[in-house]
Amino acid sequence: MKVDILSLFPEMFSGVLHSSILKKAQEKGAVSFTVTDFRDYADNKHRKVDDYPYGGGAGMVLAPQPIFDAAAAAAAKSTSLKKPRIVLMCPQGERFSQRKAEELAKEDHLIIICGHYEGYDERIRQHLVTDEISIGDYVLTGGELGAMVIVDAVTRLIPDVLGNEESHQQDSFSTGMLEHPHYTRPAEFRGLKVPEVLQSGNHAMIDEWRRKESLKRTFERRPELLEHIELSDKEKAWLAEWNQSN
Amino acid sequence: MKVDILSLFPEMFSGVLHSSILKKAQEKGAVSFTVTDFRDYADNKHRKVDDYPYGGGAGMVLAPQPIFDAAAAAAAKSTSLKKPRIVLMCPQGERFSQRKAEELAKEDHLIIICGHYEGYDERIRQHLVTDEISIGDYVLTGGELGAMVIVDAVTRLIPDVLGNEESHQQDSFSTGMLEHPHYTRPAEFRGLKVPEVLQSGNHAMIDEWRRKESLKRTFERRPELLEHIELSDKEKAWLAEWNQSN
Repeated sequence: MKVDILSLFPEMFSGVLHSSILKKAQEKGAVSFTVTDFRDYADNKHRKVDDYPYGGGAGMVLAPQPIFDAAAAAAAKSTSLKKPRIVLMCPQGERFSQRKAEELAKEDHLIIICGHYEGYDERIRQHLVTDEISIGDYVLTGGELGAMVIVDAVTRLIPDVLGNEESHQQDSFSTGMLEHPHYTRPAEFRGLKVPEVLQSGNHAMIDEWRRKESLKRTFERRPELLEHIELSDKEKAWLAEWNQSN
Repeated sequence: MKVDILSLFPEMFSGVLHSSILKKAQEKGAVSFTVTDFRDYADNKHRKVDDYPYGGGAGMVLAPQPIFDAAAAAAAKSTSLKKPRIVLMCPQGERFSQRKAEELAKEDHLIIICGHYEGYDERIRQHLVTDEISIGDYVLTGGELGAMVIVDAVTRLIPDVLGNEESHQQDSFSTGMLEHPHYTRPAEFRGLKVPEVLQSGNHAMIDEWRRKESLKRTFERRPELLEHIELSDKEKAWLAEWNQSN
């Protein structure tokens, strides 16, 4: 997969794109990243990329020309017959989710546009991009962190990127519930003990304890996730009990 | 505000902590960041920070000792009488929100713990941290990107960090609705025109257009936000019309 990131702060990406899984994925040839300062595409001698808003008001607006041209230049380097997906990072966008990550992981070429404390000219939104994405309901200075989040979540899903060790965490979401508690050595740390059942060697009991704790944590923190889970009669009885003591 | 980040990948933070608003905030003395590799606190000669899970199963678990000791060392450097908030980045955590950012922005000292594709020993969760936070429902390789998101969202809220230019974007959320479209020059870009009303100079009409577009975008994309908005009769009539044509 090719990923082009368009940003006015390309230096923000250096640490993240060259560490951990993203580094390994590039070394394996599974993904290649290009970060482009779209100021380089401004067709005016001051390399200006923004201007005052029509209709007045505070704040500046990112002009269409540099972003259209930077995206076209990135798209022109595409080696796939498929058109690139052009993603705009913005607070008004669709909330990013694991399902969206899975969808984007099937693409050959992503172009991700990051604004930075300015609005986008609406023509970018309406006539250039294929997707508008927000990573959550909080105010960030720019789209750069969101782009990194998307790149990480998507790259991990490309086949052969993850080794065994790293893929465990991902699998642990496959139950649709929050994870059960984990413990490792020492069995007693500053007076805090590991539950005896986990040291019992009785695997049926351990499995039941884990399923119950996972269910309990999900019930307490994210009850809406339980709507999609098939439960045994025993599990339904646990839930009824917790509901009563609430 | 002091922010201590505990991570096994401290190099990931360099680009983000030294750019844009986070750079300026440090220069102004509003915030100071320390990123610590908690492997430095492992009390074994192999600097090992993880171990096999009790009860068996795939994946490794971060042991309590290095993280407890790294957090204690960070807390010991606190210059405030207030206890530090100790935040664990994890998928099971409370979903991060603007309200949570506002809450954390009132603290003097944050300690943020980032795991990396491994579980945490439950004793960390139960006996060390004050908050567990997730930035969204997607799988990331580690807590580092989440920590950067929190640091950016919180730092922007510290008084005097933002200049006028940067603070506009933040203010634009204060209506509780998604933003109206923005346009800047040129009035016509590759055949795509700026709406005439924005070029009219009639500020009452411009204000009405913006309010209507903001309401429409919110209705189309995030209707749940409208529950908390006070609407005029005219606005209610618009909504009724859009509802009918859906």
